Amino acid sequence: MQVTTLGEALYPSPLRYFVSDSLRLAERIIQRPDEKMTDNIAFELAGPREKLFFDAKNTRAGIVTCGGLSPGLNDVIRSLFLELHHAYGVSHVYGFQGGYRGLDPHLGKEPLLLTPELVDDVHKKGGTFLGTSRGPVDTAVAVQNLIDKQINILFVVGGDGTQRGGYELYKEAKRQNYPLAVVGVPKTIDNDIPFVSQTFGYLTAIEEAAKALDRAHVEARCVNNGISLVKLMGRNAGFIAAGATLASQEVNFILVPEVPFKLEGPNGFLAALKKRIQDRGHALVVVAEGAGQELLQNNTQLKDASGNIILNDIGQYLSTRIKTFFEDEDIPVHLRYMDPSYLIRSTRANAVDSVLCDLFARNAVHAAMAGKTGLIIGKMHDKYIHVPSELLASRKRVMETDGMLWHGVLASTGQPASFY
Amino acid sequence: MQVTTLGEALYPSPLRYFVSDSLRLAERIIQRPDEKMTDNIAFELAGPREKLFFDAKNTRAGIVTCGGLSPGLNDVIRSLFLELHHAYGVSHVYGFQGGYRGLDPHLGKEPLLLTPELVDDVHKKGGTFLGTSRGPVDTAVAVQNLIDKQINILFVVGGDGTQRGGYELYKEAKRQNYPLAVVGVPKTIDNDIPFVSQTFGYLTAIEEAAKALDRAHVEARCVNNGISLVKLMGRNAGFIAAGATLASQEVNFILVPEVPFKLEGPNGFLAALKKRIQDRGHALVVVAEGAGQELLQNNTQLKDASGNIILNDIGQYLSTRIKTFFEDEDIPVHLRYMDPSYLIRSTRANAVDSVLCDLFARNAVHAAMAGKTGLIIGKMHDKYIHVPSELLASRKRVMETDGMLWHGVLASTGQPASFY
Amino acid sequence: MQVTTLGEALYPSPLRYFVSDSLRLAERIIQRPDEKMTDNIAFELAGPREKLFFDAKNTRAGIVTCGGLSPGLNDVIRSLFLELHHAYGVSHVYGFQGGYRGLDPHLGKEPLLLTPELVDDVHKKGGTFLGTSRGPVDTAVAVQNLIDKQINILFVVGGDGTQRGGYELYKEAKRQNYPLAVVGVPKTIDNDIPFVSQTFGYLTAIEEAAKALDRAHVEARCVNNGISLVKLMGRNAGFIAAGATLASQEVNFILVPEVPFKLEGPNGFLAALKKRIQDRGHALVVVAEGAGQELLQNNTQLKDASGNIILNDIGQYLSTRIKTFFEDEDIPVHLRYMDPSYLIRSTRANAVDSVLCDLFARNAVHAAMAGKTGLIIGKMHDKYIHVPSELLASRKRVMETDGMLWHGVLASTGQPASFY
Amino acid sequence: MQVTTLGEALYPSPLRYFVSDSLRLAERIIQRPDEKMTDNIAFELAGPREKLFFDAKNTRAGIVTCGGLSPGLNDVIRSLFLELHHAYGVSHVYGFQGGYRGLDPHLGKEPLLLTPELVDDVHKKGGTFLGTSRGPVDTAVAVQNLIDKQINILFVVGGDGTQRGGYELYKEAKRQNYPLAVVGVPKTIDNDIPFVSQTFGYLTAIEEAAKALDRAHVEARCVNNGISLVKLMGRNAGFIAAGATLASQEVNFILVPEVPFKLEGPNGFLAALKKRIQDRGHALVVVAEGAGQELLQNNTQLKDASGNIILNDIGQYLSTRIKTFFEDEDIPVHLRYMDPSYLIRSTRANAVDSVLCDLFARNAVHAAMAGKTGLIIGKMHDKYIHVPSELLASRKRVMETDGMLWHGVLASTGQPASFY
Repeated sequence: MQVTTLGEALYPSPLRYFVSDSLRLAERIIQRPDEKMTDNIAFELAGPREKLFFDAKNTRAGIVTCGGLSPGLNDVIRSLFLELHHAYGVSHVYGFQGGYRGLDPHLGKEPLLLTPELVDDVHKKGGTFLGTSRGPVDTAVAVQNLIDKQINILFVVGGDGTQRGGYELYKEAKRQNYPLAVVGVPKTIDNDIPFVSQTFGYLTAIEEAAKALDRAHVEARCVNNGISLVKLMGRNAGFIAAGATLASQEVNFILVPEVPFKLEGPNGFLAALKKRIQDRGHALVVVAEGAGQELLQNNTQLKDASGNIILNDIGQYLSTRIKTFFEDEDIPVHLRYMDPSYLIRSTRANAVDSVLCDLFARNAVHAAMAGKTGLIIGKMHDKYIHVPSELLASRKRVMETDGMLWHGVLASTGQPASFY
Repeated sequence: MQVTTLGEALYPSPLRYFVSDSLRLAERIIQRPDEKMTDNIAFELAGPREKLFFDAKNTRAGIVTCGGLSPGLNDVIRSLFLELHHAYGVSHVYGFQGGYRGLDPHLGKEPLLLTPELVDDVHKKGGTFLGTSRGPVDTAVAVQNLIDKQINILFVVGGDGTQRGGYELYKEAKRQNYPLAVVGVPKTIDNDIPFVSQTFGYLTAIEEAAKALDRAHVEARCVNNGISLVKLMGRNAGFIAAGATLASQEVNFILVPEVPFKLEGPNGFLAALKKRIQDRGHALVVVAEGAGQELLQNNTQLKDASGNIILNDIGQYLSTRIKTFFEDEDIPVHLRYMDPSYLIRSTRANAVDSVLCDLFARNAVHAAMAGKTGLIIGKMHDKYIHVPSELLASRKRVMETDGMLWHGVLASTGQPASFY
Repeated sequence: MQVTTLGEALYPSPLRYFVSDSLRLAERIIQRPDEKMTDNIAFELAGPREKLFFDAKNTRAGIVTCGGLSPGLNDVIRSLFLELHHAYGVSHVYGFQGGYRGLDPHLGKEPLLLTPELVDDVHKKGGTFLGTSRGPVDTAVAVQNLIDKQINILFVVGGDGTQRGGYELYKEAKRQNYPLAVVGVPKTIDNDIPFVSQTFGYLTAIEEAAKALDRAHVEARCVNNGISLVKLMGRNAGFIAAGATLASQEVNFILVPEVPFKLEGPNGFLAALKKRIQDRGHALVVVAEGAGQELLQNNTQLKDASGNIILNDIGQYLSTRIKTFFEDEDIPVHLRYMDPSYLIRSTRANAVDSVLCDLFARNAVHAAMAGKTGLIIGKMHDKYIHVPSELLASRKRVMETDGMLWHGVLASTGQPASFY
Repeated sequence: MQVTTLGEALYPSPLRYFVSDSLRLAERIIQRPDEKMTDNIAFELAGPREKLFFDAKNTRAGIVTCGGLSPGLNDVIRSLFLELHHAYGVSHVYGFQGGYRGLDPHLGKEPLLLTPELVDDVHKKGGTFLGTSRGPVDTAVAVQNLIDKQINILFVVGGDGTQRGGYELYKEAKRQNYPLAVVGVPKTIDNDIPFVSQTFGYLTAIEEAAKALDRAHVEARCVNNGISLVKLMGRNAGFIAAGATLASQEVNFILVPEVPFKLEGPNGFLAALKKRIQDRGHALVVVAEGAGQELLQNNTQLKDASGNIILNDIGQYLSTRIKTFFEDEDIPVHLRYMDPSYLIRSTRANAVDSVLCDLFARNAVHAAMAGKTGLIIGKMHDKYIHVPSELLASRKRVMETDGMLWHGVLASTGQPASFY
């Protein structure tokens, strides 16, 4: 699938390794007998292009980070800047501050002019040194601001909502015939953006979450009938809970959004937990924040500034239900509830995420300098690709419950395939 | 101050380095002009004794761990066993399971007979592999059980309440003329046991808590008007909050049990927090769990199984009050509340705590083998000492608000000396 | 490419998620215009099969770990056992001790009969609790031993040489008409096994190596004309050096086996290092152990017990050459040489490697229980596959110098593409 | 023991907690019967003074860091600056760059004028952002430079040699009647400065060294007859080796400067190592860099720029001797030699060292502002004290071989008290 390119290429690149615009990577690559893959989408490969659209000397770029924290944001900003600055020679790179608000000169602070000194050590800290916020910006105001600042390239680092916003900016600029390359770097600690097999920050989150699970296991194991209940991130997809479970190998029960469950009844979760406590005297339960929403009274669906539905707190709910259940059963338990989410997402990226951030960022710069726009950098089958932004809306990425990861998780926990 | 010794020494020790019973260490060592230190308590020094009371070949020992988790419990058990086994040749060392309950044969599981293989790697895990619980045991039943098992040495690893329990066991055995050495290894992650300048687990807690504070700081700093509120351990004393604050150097406000504070009014905490938000746009607040109890409605003082008063949750209370305050002030803030306590206390000991555990444990064995009883191992002026258990009740150890640690904390945060 | 299957399937599996034998994954998946991929190899997908060859109740399995340490060995052993034991019900799983030596009853210790208790915590430690060694075993003796012990499944965890050895065992058993499933789990911290995009331990190595680089950078930066030279693993491929360089972002020069280099001359490495020192006053140099072998006098090529050529020490050689060079140039430098290889490879697996180990191991069990033999589990395009062992000899996996990773490394270091 | 004070106090402090000049802390505090402590030295206590000598508004201060790296240098610089700046209101604080060289305007770079922004995050990095070097400076030139820059307070952060240098500066200034407060913050990762029970960086070194020992243990244990030999820091004192040994609990043999040893003979080290290998099949040996110097041919004693004798490399020597010994004995062993010193000393301070750095630094500022000079901040009996610089030359601090630490180490390793 080809992304929009702003116009014909103007400048030869100083680089010696190039990726051709004509290469394609298909979404479905597993060959099944007697099947024709007629509706298979194929994507451009990311990488440096031999012909550039923008003249580095006369080009200004901007970077904005939006939404919740994810390990690696500073790595991305830094590598975007360094590739623009050193490899392409773009001298003016601005960091918009405080998320999309920063694109509106009436709301935000002035953008920072980035320098090698300024970004030198930022990758050693969690968070984003540009600041972040939720919520959109007035598209017309933002594009006018970019025009005023002579910025032709905008990197938007953020999740679904952010990338939708980036797509609106691209369309507005196109409407005004202003050559604006909007390139997205997908950010979701939950790892749930379609066409991106692995988003940055996810593996760091697994690492930190697995440590929390190991400790929660210690808490449960050292007391009689100890139950540790840990809530982890994962609004729509249980990737963090599943990955951390597999890494830790200590979890007995895991509840994720992809698998609805019942609490009551002979095959419900509470009966299984009771059996575990009676048999082994301790249990470690992990719940993704988006799990079991169907159990909660959800009359008025509130949304946050990014437009995400505010979830009811399944952690607190489960905690109460477990407590009440064992009181009713007259089985004394020591229940401890832990929510390490903020402490996980604010760490700096680990090594593998740092590498990922670097490559995502450099590929974003390659795409932008070649004049590609209205796209995000994706990753599929271990390759970096160009994903048209409009495609994002068409899919949700969740964990396959008949796939290898979830199967490994079930084997590791020993829990039944469902609580029904 | 001399502890009770069971009787005359019977056996020569195989060791070559000994500490004399006649050495003393005074509590007050700072010399002030024109002051006579007449009421100065002095303690025996801990260490191996040249003459032993127990014959290793015919002696059995027991170990019990009680109360909440603290990093290093497994290190202590392991070094108690190894010193008994290798240095003194005691072949039967039992690990009572599940805290004091384990001393009652009707309630608990059978004690484990410890071996070098069993303890080999336990120090690499958090928690206590013997299990723990809160609450006392029937003194007569427990002593009879020790007599039945021919156990003449009991190591009790635990806090105030546990050591009081140990003292009761010692008195009961004495009443029955059963030679029982009860030696306590003080355990409190809060570091609030008198005559013990540094309990094991405390420095690991500081380490982990400081990491949590650094992350909470990232959370606060990356958003507009971000406030991170972190609750740390510290029921009666603010040592963990203070140590972590000094280590992190990122905290703006710290609230501890030793310094009562007001929320309202021009010199109250909320006004100071508002000023900070208006000036800098972000704030990191640390509160010890025992702080500000006077602010909470506390009509019915509940106690847990160890007899500790169940504290009202100052963290949740503060969280609500801050939220309401800024709503009333019409200042939008992003408040995030974090409670990493369980995740901190369940870690394994760091290196300095491992050293501390080893030395506490070996000194406890030295004391017991020499027939000392009714004591805990203390640490004062960088030396290990024998503290008679009965002395523990006479004092509370809290942070001096006119001392170096709190002064450093105030300098580091820049907060006023009090909110009044 | 299909692997050998021992015979027709006998037993229905208790699992509900299956992978068909007929699915294929092609090696080359990037579509180039006007190109027909006629010689494209395609592989079976790994995963649980609906029909099994072995009857779990009457089947015994063995596990052996060979060669140098890599983080995750214990995770692999543990997950092999747990999948065999819990998912398939194989009750006798033996751990052969001390590498291939352990297969020879005359040389090694008796194999361990694995139990859930024995493997419970092994994944929290580095190394392999079964022990390891280099070098082959007498094939006939080993197969006879397996026959005597009624072992029909053998998992060999190791590198190239180990897998070649496994292939010989498979052929010998076939010659004797003994149904033996030999399934390899590829192990190379260097990440250089063909058809395996990511071997376990590699990402942990990157993580630890990047930490070492950060510290070496501190050493160099704090003194005048400080040069830190760090040797990292990588006999034939520079993946560890490259990955750690990209993760650390502090490296100025990296030397890998894939890119020969000159020391002398105006475009040589030493001239570039001199320029860096004169311009910036400090430098961080990384060298993979297999780099620059062409520079070393290599008259007699010694081999170790695994048949690997013993490399001349490029680290010590470079260290001497740099020292002499700057002495000759009369430029005082502080050169520090560090070789953290042993400290890196002996760590426990990090979270992402733990997940990888678990999935490699479970897929190995699925393959073996279905009667597949003479294969290793591979990973390609983010999918687990079956790779016939005989294919391994046909390829070497090295870093592409015109690919994304090396390009990112060059951009990050700012070094020229080659020293010529 | 009282330190020199520059003159009468001029300005009331804004602080509310003060320490009196008249308080004293004696060196010897253990009371022995029938002993009169007639020659007991007593020290001033550190802390804020009610009366100051310097007027903050008209005072300039300088900071210099010298010698080898130790974790916490940046923490010390930062807290020195913050206490001067925020607590006392000193607006001009200079960081001299590159060690004592930086005091000579002809040799070094210009000093940095420190600001809150500049030091904000420096404590999160290892090393010293001011740079360091070995070797002295021309005293007259340096003092003239301080006079020219109107600097009346100089903090010297460094070891023995550095503090001797600071004492010379103090004497030169006194000779010239220039009121210069020279206050030392003792820095030695080896922990071997007299009157300082614990120097900053030491506990971080223990932490990192213990990790290295755990990994070396894995290396040794996973192969047949594996021997890991680890060299750790410790030129004159074995504190790091001993502390790490006690923390790790995996070491079988430890060799330190305080205990000479023989290699050969029936009671020598090699015979003991052979026995261990024959009995257990693996061994972990730790050697402090200053151990066994008597074994090495030491004809020409070279000194480094700081005047320290360049030690012969006991690590390499032992490695060769062990290898040869087992070859001669015809026992095949796998010997691995590791030297993690640079990787240890360049880490950032851990939490307990960060607290220590903060308190050392603030006490140094208190002393300087009160006009104290020619002293270093010490720590004794858990209290911070003022130690006259001239006293340093009179003592060496080494580990007591009849004390608790070494006794614990021997118990933990199980090695004999000496190899003779």
